[in-house]
Formats: sequence, structure tokens, C-alpha cells
Amino acid sequence: MTGSVPTIAEYLVSRLAAAGVRAVFGVPGDYNLRLLDVIEASPELDWVGNANELNAAYAADGHARIAGFGVLVTTYGVGELSAMNGLAGAFAESVPVLHIVGSPGTAVARAGLPVHHSLLDGDAEHFTRALSEVTCAGAVLTAENAATEIDRVLTAVLTDKRPGTLSLPSDLVDQPIAALPEPPAAPSPEPTTHSQLEAFRTRAAALLTGANRVALLVDHLAQRQGMRAELGELAGIPGVVSAVTAPGKGALDETAPGFLGLYIGALSEEPVRAEVEDADVIIGAGLRLADLSSGGFTARLDPARLIDLRGRHAVLAGEPFPGVGMAEALRALRPLVNATRPPATEPPSGAEPVAGPTPVGGERTAGGPLTQRAFWARLAGFLRPHDILAADQGTPFYGVATLPLPAGVDVVAQPLWASIGYALPALLGAQLASAGRRRSILVIGDGSAQMTVQELGTFIRHGLDPIVFLVNNDGYTVERAINGPTARYNDIAHWNWSRVPEALGAAPDTLVRRAATGAELDRALADCAEHAGKLAFVEVVLDRLDLPELLVRTAAAVAEQNR
Amino acid sequence: MTGSVPTIAEYLVSRLAAAGVRAVFGVPGDYNLRLLDVIEASPELDWVGNANELNAAYAADGHARIAGFGVLVTTYGVGELSAMNGLAGAFAESVPVLHIVGSPGTAVARAGLPVHHSLLDGDAEHFTRALSEVTCAGAVLTAENAATEIDRVLTAVLTDKRPGTLSLPSDLVDQPIAALPEPPAAPSPEPTTHSQLEAFRTRAAALLTGANRVALLVDHLAQRQGMRAELGELAGIPGVVSAVTAPGKGALDETAPGFLGLYIGALSEEPVRAEVEDADVIIGAGLRLADLSSGGFTARLDPARLIDLRGRHAVLAGEPFPGVGMAEALRALRPLVNATRPPATEPPSGAEPVAGPTPVGGERTAGGPLTQRAFWARLAGFLRPHDILAADQGTPFYGVATLPLPAGVDVVAQPLWASIGYALPALLGAQLASAGRRRSILVIGDGSAQMTVQELGTFIRHGLDPIVFLVNNDGYTVERAINGPTARYNDIAHWNWSRVPEALGAAPDTLVRRAATGAELDRALADCAEHAGKLAFVEVVLDRLDLPELLVRTAAAVAEQNR
Repeated sequence: MTGSVPTIAEYLVSRLAAAGVRAVFGVPGDYNLRLLDVIEASPELDWVGNANELNAAYAADGHARIAGFGVLVTTYGVGELSAMNGLAGAFAESVPVLHIVGSPGTAVARAGLPVHHSLLDGDAEHFTRALSEVTCAGAVLTAENAATEIDRVLTAVLTDKRPGTLSLPSDLVDQPIAALPEPPAAPSPEPTTHSQLEAFRTRAAALLTGANRVALLVDHLAQRQGMRAELGELAGIPGVVSAVTAPGKGALDETAPGFLGLYIGALSEEPVRAEVEDADVIIGAGLRLADLSSGGFTARLDPARLIDLRGRHAVLAGEPFPGVGMAEALRALRPLVNATRPPATEPPSGAEPVAGPTPVGGERTAGGPLTQRAFWARLAGFLRPHDILAADQGTPFYGVATLPLPAGVDVVAQPLWASIGYALPALLGAQLASAGRRRSILVIGDGSAQMTVQELGTFIRHGLDPIVFLVNNDGYTVERAINGPTARYNDIAHWNWSRVPEALGAAPDTLVRRAATGAELDRALADCAEHAGKLAFVEVVLDRLDLPELLVRTAAAVAEQNR
Repeated sequence: MTGSVPTIAEYLVSRLAAAGVRAVFGVPGDYNLRLLDVIEASPELDWVGNANELNAAYAADGHARIAGFGVLVTTYGVGELSAMNGLAGAFAESVPVLHIVGSPGTAVARAGLPVHHSLLDGDAEHFTRALSEVTCAGAVLTAENAATEIDRVLTAVLTDKRPGTLSLPSDLVDQPIAALPEPPAAPSPEPTTHSQLEAFRTRAAALLTGANRVALLVDHLAQRQGMRAELGELAGIPGVVSAVTAPGKGALDETAPGFLGLYIGALSEEPVRAEVEDADVIIGAGLRLADLSSGGFTARLDPARLIDLRGRHAVLAGEPFPGVGMAEALRALRPLVNATRPPATEPPSGAEPVAGPTPVGGERTAGGPLTQRAFWARLAGFLRPHDILAADQGTPFYGVATLPLPAGVDVVAQPLWASIGYALPALLGAQLASAGRRRSILVIGDGSAQMTVQELGTFIRHGLDPIVFLVNNDGYTVERAINGPTARYNDIAHWNWSRVPEALGAAPDTLVRRAATGAELDRALADCAEHAGKLAFVEVVLDRLDLPELLVRTAAAVAEQNR
């Protein structure tokens, strides 16, 4: 920082660094260039330029899912609105993303001058109002409010796990920050209050007394709280059965002895549904069920038997316990669940894993056309512990939803907001969040990839080595499953997928494979396993009407819901 | 239509057809699939599937600039928000685009159910409110209001030349439309009122009496009113001098004897500035000057000498004439201007064209590195009457702004909203609006093209034959001109541009050229001229700091404005 009083931009950058941010996503525009100068000069932040702003928002979201926080910088109007779908996705799926917008100078905005990237109607607030619909907090910075507003919005984002926006007028970047308070602590979520923890513990003990069957059901909000270790300890108690929702995939290690598989209301495999819904006590971690994650609102979780841990408060048999955070609640529950376990004289009913339909790949000869079933069976064998697995919201996510996962695998997907194309840029952010150290795998359909494909160039530019499975099934198969299986509107342009990596900058020796049979996929997977450190791109050719089995059931529910 | 009472979707489609719509842009999503069934069944509408929704919005905007109206269909949440930047651009630049959103069923929305593509917070109106910031009219259709609301929004879009939104809940698509009114006339702009035309004529005659020097200045709103013929007649009167603003390029044929060139306030060439600003009467057609089109607010157009035709009203020497449309006003002015011309004893001062800096290409040998100056000089010679010329808002638009245009050339560009990447999908819409009959040329920078490149596949899919000049100048040169000429944040991923067309589906025999010298460009242009009917793709290699001369001056003004 220049001198003793930092500029507003320097202060903002220092607060991001204090919050642990390293990668900053976004696109330059003339209203943010001076801020980017400050970011580029910072030894703590790395600027990751994206091909466009929607991709930048997706990347920041993917980064936040792994690192706990994501940041993107856009420019006024054109940039911030392009990012908006990505921010809305972060809102819907509870992902802490900070969106910094470089905006016109204060005097320009106040006078309502018709400047570029404005609507030319004298109202400089259109986009602030629009963004407020998809953010939990926002501020237009001024010389006076910058210090307090920056921290207020950062804290809100980290606490609520939702996106927030800071708008920084271009003339303020180099202004000294006014009334810098005492050096505050690093921005962090507001601490949970413990006032009701004892009451919660007492009530939980009563509910668990005599409970023979305890089921742990994990949904996506648990992932946002980073509860993998705590959940693993609970799930590891003998006799406890556990299951995940589809959006919760990856939030719970699936190697616990009592792991059942996927819970999705009435669309669950019957043993999973029964073990969860009929348990004496159901511990729900991070539940927020929506249509696609509840089998079309068919989940039947009796509130009287439910301990519902929602992140920053809990609800136990219908009784609210505000201020009881998920981590504290899980730690409190562990001895209670342990104590109420019956002596292990016979195997608890849930001890036999009854995972969802285990994919098998041998139903056709390896030389015949590849099927969804065979593809997923092989991918299951390809995964390793601690991979990052990004699955786009076409057929890929429905394949992943029933895929047995090794320990420590993070799933990056957007199954509730469900914006196709998300997973490709999101994996960019996720892989950078692991500093490139974790093996990163993308499965994405051809229609989805066409949405955001340019971001493949950013992986290449930054020397990242994702393994990309491009599912070429000739169009929007997920839509064909719902309506118009052969309709022309579900068709897409035919690309030469195997040429795409090199066109977008990949080195000529990049591993590019095309797999239309099981044998070809086997060879490609073997090549990928040997080929760490460089981008690998496998075009997986599947029939346009071949669906993961879960999608068959889900699509029917969606079609019914839309009638 | 099935039976005598059409469904809501059938009625909507019939109104679009009545308004002259043929191409419909967009992306399928489960909430709009049944509407797409109706569109696909319509003999009058052609579905043009886009690679993503932002591109669809840009394409609909480009279509509207040529055909007078553009339509896109998206799906709730993910789709409509992705399109939002494109809609805002249509708002800022006054382009009539109708945005139809397929949304969740009425009962689902009313109950606030947590369905996919919602924010899962029970409020189904977030996106309607956000879109209202960038649209002139909008409606959520119901069984009761559909007939009236469809026509209200269509009329507003066509009248105001702004985007509008219709939200169609999925359960209403197949509902019979309630209370179908008498078959209304085809949707069209509200007629202008003529009550004040006589007063305007009288007042104009007084102002023009004794006016020796009349200047016609044409800006972009004249293009939206389709005034090329009327403006040509006025500009053709001996002694009248004419000029265009940068956003007005293409709205006025530049072949009139008194055509001066580009007017851009104090950044104009001095003879142009003086001839316009010092005229006895200035007729402004479709003026709405913004920072980038006024040389940073340095236009000095004396209101006392200005006849300001704004589209649906006029202001004459400061006096408003509501209801006086541009066409009527121009027709009224023509005999008045004619009558006040002095006998042509000597050439009027404006008869000598003093067009802006005429690009010349001979300043370097044809074998040396290509320059911006040489590129534009050659492009000037390549243009033909009635081409459609799309120029993206990096260096390309600043080259086009001073380029002499043959008669009838339409320029598709977005110089006020200025969202880079716009021109590629916009040309898709524009070329389809000409039913593929007009030669269509795109000039776009590498950073811009990376934003929206996937839409090149849609040209190919539909058998279109644009000529693409991909200006490869190694990053965001337009930003380098403003700030950070060598900053890393203005760098982009390095693509192998010559491989891009085939990767995105172009036939192996597509014309692909790379021109780094004048001689290579000459050969490429000759090849393109012979190669009609197929996509041609020319990578034009230019220095990263080489700028069209107008951009040098504009960038300095922008940098100053942002301080």
C-alpha cells in the first residue's frame, strides 16, 4: 500500500487477501481497469482472466465450493448483467461469491450522464436494483462508506453463503480510504451463538433415547459448511445408516459401512427410501429439498422424528433452535448417537450397503456401441480418492448421482439452479482452488459444452490439466427426455469435438480421444490415467436417447409438474 | 390452430407471424418446450436454436436492426438472466426485441414451490422484477389476460423500439385463449399523431427562411425508424451538407454530394465539425448523443438552430412538437429546404466531401506487417453496395466509423451499450433477416470473439456464408488503449484461430486464410470475393498496440472521464 493510508482499492484487495482469497476471476472493462492494476500489483491475489463474465461467475462459484469463497470482477452494465445468471445460481445453491463491479465515476453517475454501458436514460441504478434480486447484500461504495461497507458485504457473503455485490466507482479506486477503523479481524462468517446448544443437546438426547434406527441424510448445505469430517464421524458410528441427496453428492464420504446410496423421495431405490424415512430418528444435515432432489416433492421425512441441521440454526422435532450451527450440533449429536446404539449383537439393518443401482458395464460387448450404463460403470472404476468431479446438468449429473464415490471426492455440479454449461467454468475455479493439486474431471454434454466452451482456453492458458469427458449424444438429451425426443429444437450444431482443444489453444500433443465403444473408452481411460499434467479430452459418443436410469424417472416427474 | 379457439401459444405465434416475424431465436428449456412444439409446427416461423441465451438475445437484436423486429425464447431463471445483457443492449440502443420466457406452471409459481431454475426462496417474481429494469413493457400471462397483454407488449416494443418480455407459464401453453377479441390488426407501432404537423411545418419554414447553410446530422435512432430513403432525399438537395454520428453509420447513404463524414463533437475532423455546428440550421435525425458518440460530451449543437427529430416527436428551436413522427417531419422539411436553397451560382461550401481521414494502405510495403490503416483501406475497397457489415466494439467499430460506405450498406454494431462479442451473434440475426440474400461481413477482435464464438457453429448449421475477419491483435486492444497497455489483465488465451471454423463444424473445404501482410490480405480478399455461398474466415494479424486513429482520440477521452 502506498503510504500509511491505503486507497479504497488497496483496502478492498487487502480484505480479500485476509479472507483467504487467492484467485480472482473476471473480465477487464474500462470502468474496472484501475482496480485490476491494484489486483495485478498484489502479491497475494492472482488474476484469472475469463473468456466472458458468465463463465467468470461460474468459475468463482466453483472456486467457492472448494475454497469456501469466490470472487469475480466485472464492469458496469455489460459485465455485471452477463454474470447475473451465474450469481443467481450461487444464490439458489448457497455459494459464497463476491461480485465486484467497476462502475462509472461518482460525478458521472450522480449527474445521470449518458455514458457507455448505461441505458442512456439518466438512471444509474438499474443494474444495482436488478442484482439485488439475486444477492444477499450489496453496496455502492463511496469515499465515506467504503471501509464499513466492504466488511459488511464480505461478512454477509461468508455468513449467509450467498452472493453479494460491491460496486466501485472508477474515480474512487485511488482515493484514500476514509476513517479506516481499527484493523479488523479477517472477514469471516458471523460466529454461531451457543445460547441454545445445551437446550438442543437435552432435547436431542430425549429424542434419541431408545432410537434403534438412526439415519443420517446429507444434502448440499452441509457441503457449504465444510462438514465432511464431522459427518464422517457420525456416519461411522456402527448401526447408523447414511444417505445423500443428489445435490449432496460428495458432501459425505460414501465409504462408511452404513452408507445406503441416493435418497430422492419416492424415486429412491426402495430399500434406501425405507431405511431413511422409517428410521426412528433422521438427522438431516443441510437439507433444502427442491423438486429435482425430492423426486418431485415426494420426500416423506416425518418432522417429529427429524433433527434438521440447517447451517446456522437447527429444528428438532419441529422445535427451532436458532443459533445452533451445524458443526456444533453434529459434535453434540455424536456421543448421544453413540450412547444410544444397541449392543452390536446382530448386524444393524443398515449395515449392508444397498447403494442405488450399481452401474455395470458388461451388458454389451466392449466392441458394441457405448451405452450410458457402460460409461458410468467404467467411470466409477476410474475415480480416485480426492478427485474433483464436475458434472454438468444434462445426463452427466444424473449419472453421477448414483455413482459410488471414493473418499474425499468433491462433486461440482449445479443440480438445483440447473444451468447447463455451468460445470466447465466451475471446474476451472475448483481446480484453481486446489492450486491445481487435485485431479480434476469434467463430464459434460455436447449441448451444455457449447454454452461455455471458450473457457477451455482458460484451463489451457493457465497450464491446468483437467480430464474432460465430452458426452456427444447429439443435442439436448435432457430435454428430449422431458419433451420432444426427436424435435428439431432439441438438435444442436454438429461440431468436430476432437478439433476443439487444439483450436482453443491446446498443444498439438494433447491427449484427445474418441470413444464410441467400450473398448475405445477402456483404452482412453488407460491413456488418461497415464497422462497426468496435461489436458486430456475424451469425446464419448452415446445415443441421443440413451439416459441414465435416474433421469428416466426424473424427467417423467418434471413433465408432469409442467402440465 | 386446433379448432376454432386457439390455444394461448397458438395465439401468440399467430401474432408474431402477423407482425412479420419469421426467425425465432433462443434455447430450449423444459419450461418452454411445449411452446417450441407450437413454434415448430407453425409454417410461418422458423426456429433458430442458439448455442446460449446471450447469443440468442444478440441475434434477435441483429435481426431487429434489419427486419424491424426480433424475437427470442428462453426458459425461466437460467435462460432469461443469461439473456439479460443482450436485452439491456437492445434497451440502450433502442432495438425492438420481444423476449418470451417459458416459466413454471401457474400453481407452482403461486405456491412458491422450490422448483429448479428458481431461487428456492418462494418468490417467483425475482426475475420479472430484474427484467423490468431493462425492458419497456412486460407481462406474466394468465388465461384471462393473454389476448390483451400479448398485443399490449408487442405494440409497446414496436412503438418504443425497446425490448419487452412475455412470461408464459408452462401450464397455459395449451389452454384455449379466453375472450379472444375481434381479430385485431397486425401488431404495429402506434400511429404518430398529426395534430401538430402543421404547426411544425410553419415553424420550420420560418427557421429555414434565409438559411443558406443547412446541415443534416444523422444518428442511430433514424436507423431504427427505417429512414434511409427519406434521409437520402433530403441529403440529395443541392447545397445540403450531411454527416453521421458513429452509431448512425449506415443510416444515411454516404454517396450524397454534400456528405461530409463522421461527426463526433470536438473529435471530428475540423471541417466536418465546423460545417455541422456552424450551419444556419441543423436538422438532427434520430439524435441521442452519448459519451462515445459526442467526443466526450463536446458536441455543440445550438438548440436555437436545431430541428431535432427524435422519432415520435420533434423539437424545433427548443419548442416541442409531440406526435410529429420522423417520416412525416422529413417529408415536410424537404420542400422547405428545397425552397430556401440559394441559386446554385457557386458550389455550396459543403459540396466538396471532406470525409474523415481516408484510410490509405500504401504506407508500408505490401509484404511488411499489416497495419490497422492498411487493413481498413483494403476493407473499404472490398465493400459492395447493400452489404451487411457487422463490426464489434473493439478496434473494429472504430475502423468502421471512418470508413466510407457504399450505398445501402447496413452497419450492425453496438457502439453505445458497447458489449464486446455482440457483433458475431448479431450478424447471425441480421443475415437471417435478409433471408441470407445479402452479403454479410463480420469484423471482430480476438478478445471479443472469445466471448461468443460458439455462435459461429449456428451460422454453419444454417448454411449461412458470412465473411469473417478475425482481428488477432493478441488481447483486449481497446482496453490497452485506455489503461494497462502491457498489463497482463488485457491478455487473453492464445487460440489457433485458423482451426476454429472446422472445430465448430465448418466443412473441410471452408475458405480459411491468415493475413499478416498486405499482400496476404489482398490474396485473401480476392479469394473471399470469389467464394460466395460458403463461410469464409480470415485471421487478420495486427499489432496489439496498433489502433484506428479515431480510437486513439476516443480512448484518451474515456480515460479522462473515468478519473
